[in-house]
Amino acid sequence: MFTGSHIYNRAVNARFYVPGASGGGQIIALSEDEAQHLTRVLRLTEGSPVSVFDGRGHEFQAVVEKAGKTEVLVAVGQQLKPPAAEARVGVTLVQAVLKGDKMDDVIRDAVMMGVSAIQPAITARTEVKLSALVKGHRQERWQKIAISSAKQCGRATVPEILAPCEFELIPAALGDMALPGPVLMLVEPGATIMAVAIHALEAAPPGQAMLIIGPEGGWSPEEIEATAMVCLPVTLGTRTLRADATAIVALSALFTIWREF
Amino acid sequence: MFTGSHIYNRAVNARFYVPGASGGGQIIALSEDEAQHLTRVLRLTEGSPVSVFDGRGHEFQAVVEKAGKTEVLVAVGQQLKPPAAEARVGVTLVQAVLKGDKMDDVIRDAVMMGVSAIQPAITARTEVKLSALVKGHRQERWQKIAISSAKQCGRATVPEILAPCEFELIPAALGDMALPGPVLMLVEPGATIMAVAIHALEAAPPGQAMLIIGPEGGWSPEEIEATAMVCLPVTLGTRTLRADATAIVALSALFTIWREF
Repeated sequence: MFTGSHIYNRAVNARFYVPGASGGGQIIALSEDEAQHLTRVLRLTEGSPVSVFDGRGHEFQAVVEKAGKTEVLVAVGQQLKPPAAEARVGVTLVQAVLKGDKMDDVIRDAVMMGVSAIQPAITARTEVKLSALVKGHRQERWQKIAISSAKQCGRATVPEILAPCEFELIPAALGDMALPGPVLMLVEPGATIMAVAIHALEAAPPGQAMLIIGPEGGWSPEEIEATAMVCLPVTLGTRTLRADATAIVALSALFTIWREF
Repeated sequence: MFTGSHIYNRAVNARFYVPGASGGGQIIALSEDEAQHLTRVLRLTEGSPVSVFDGRGHEFQAVVEKAGKTEVLVAVGQQLKPPAAEARVGVTLVQAVLKGDKMDDVIRDAVMMGVSAIQPAITARTEVKLSALVKGHRQERWQKIAISSAKQCGRATVPEILAPCEFELIPAALGDMALPGPVLMLVEPGATIMAVAIHALEAAPPGQAMLIIGPEGGWSPEEIEATAMVCLPVTLGTRTLRADATAIVALSALFTIWREF
């Protein structure tokens, strides 16, 4: 009856992200980050059984072939079923960039929850400039966090972290798209008379969905007005959620409605 | 149409926790923590309008009467409607104590979500001893975190953080109680054949509920067996959730089902 531990399954082999993995007989060098994780953090050695995943949904048995200081090689074997199924609804999270390291937490949580992609956006009240994000190589940093979170939560798919953009471009872009599913914008209760409570959404899971979440200081009236033309404003209870906790709460609510949970 | 900002409402006065507040004409001294928050963090001065709440659901207008280095006094005025309504379902969270500061995050998040009380528990695989929690005054620390989170999320009720206990006492205690609502134990998919997916729970909101969440290493088979006699094992999707994120995800799911969101 008891097949493993809750939260952290001790029986599962360590998992590594190997973008080119495609199966039987390949000998592949790990990236520097993955190699360090294998040798320094987990202290694995030659012959250790591991798993590798390609970030696109495929996972394989593998064995450490060489665990050197400058090079780590794995021999890729048979394909495995990834430990965590992908969500049936492909959710793109459009998240206003938050201050300090809080955006890192949102990326980590959203990947754990099962999003398909994350679009960081600069809104009217975002306190970070696009140029500062570019200069700080934040997109690359967030992509690494997405890889690390996928490893931890058992996903074999690494969601893409898109290049940060100005939020004001999004309503027009949405107008041109035909997304097979709802575009939801999270707003404070009372922000607009058109907002619906998230529990009242259609229970039938759509093929895809987009979820748009604002920054610490909220949306500007102009943003709500422009975006409400192309999306459904939704609310999430009456308590004030911390900006860095809003995505995990909203994604949990949506995945409950759509029966992922 | 636009009545305020999402996430953080700039228009709301700073809120302070004043356990004895009961209304009109009282002059009350703030606790040391609250006094420091008022003078050092927010730099408020004599005459500043604030709100005070008693932790039991009552909130009042108030004015800073004295903002001294050693004493801060507020004059309590008219009763206000608290900015955030309490959840209709009174949820008690039984949470296995997590390592390091992770329990702090769970307390903060659970209070923001709207729980009624939190019972920290030492399970078979908890890596912290009860004696260490007592020695470290952790219950007092967690209660302070609960106050701070209630201030931030607009609640006028401060959930009680109960004294940490050994988890093995809980199944018997539950057997003796008649809780007007479900007792839910979060387990890994496959942990027991009796587990149901959380989205399949009864949608009618109960009066109360208890939610039981394990530690990083999961439940022991004995714990699942003993607790399954007195509660309903529930699962939450197939991705592995970080132990410190499990409570916020499960509470979001429950509050969606029960239409708080």
